[in-house]
Amino acid sequence: MKIRVFVTLKPGVLDPQGAAIKHSLGALGFDGIGDVRQGKVIEIDLAETDPDKARTQASQMCDKLLANTVIENYSLEILS
Amino acid sequence: MKIRVFVTLKPGVLDPQGAAIKHSLGALGFDGIGDVRQGKVIEIDLAETDPDKARTQASQMCDKLLANTVIENYSLEILS
Repeated sequence: MKIRVFVTLKPGVLDPQGAAIKHSLGALGFDGIGDVRQGKVIEIDLAETDPDKARTQASQMCDKLLANTVIENYSLEILS
Repeated sequence: MKIRVFVTLKPGVLDPQGAAIKHSLGALGFDGIGDVRQGKVIEIDLAETDPDKARTQASQMCDKLLANTVIENYSLEILS
């Protein structure tokens, strides 16, 4: 079972990477760019075949390693 | 209009971050971890309201700035 984890900064937390991207897009001539936020996406192949168990396992991975839950949110998506 | 851009390494390109995550998950006691790949997700607020035009614009942004198309793939998702 393949699971996709999104890790994004919480709203209100400063995102210098997003700000740099916004600035660079403007410099390249793109107009109408509003807020830009950058996050991480992690795709994990799990041996677990039950979607609920896979979700629980991925959630534990996020709490323990993948996300800094003080400043980051995460969300999960089962791919297959 | 909000658009989400995924930038991931092409299959076959070495992913040291993914390998480090896989190793760390194993060290934390998680079993049955297969391949792990890490990528970037970028959420952009665009003034453009037409989905097709927004997609075209985002695609140009990826080609020019957001992705290194020699080693990375990108995909787009319209959020709202």
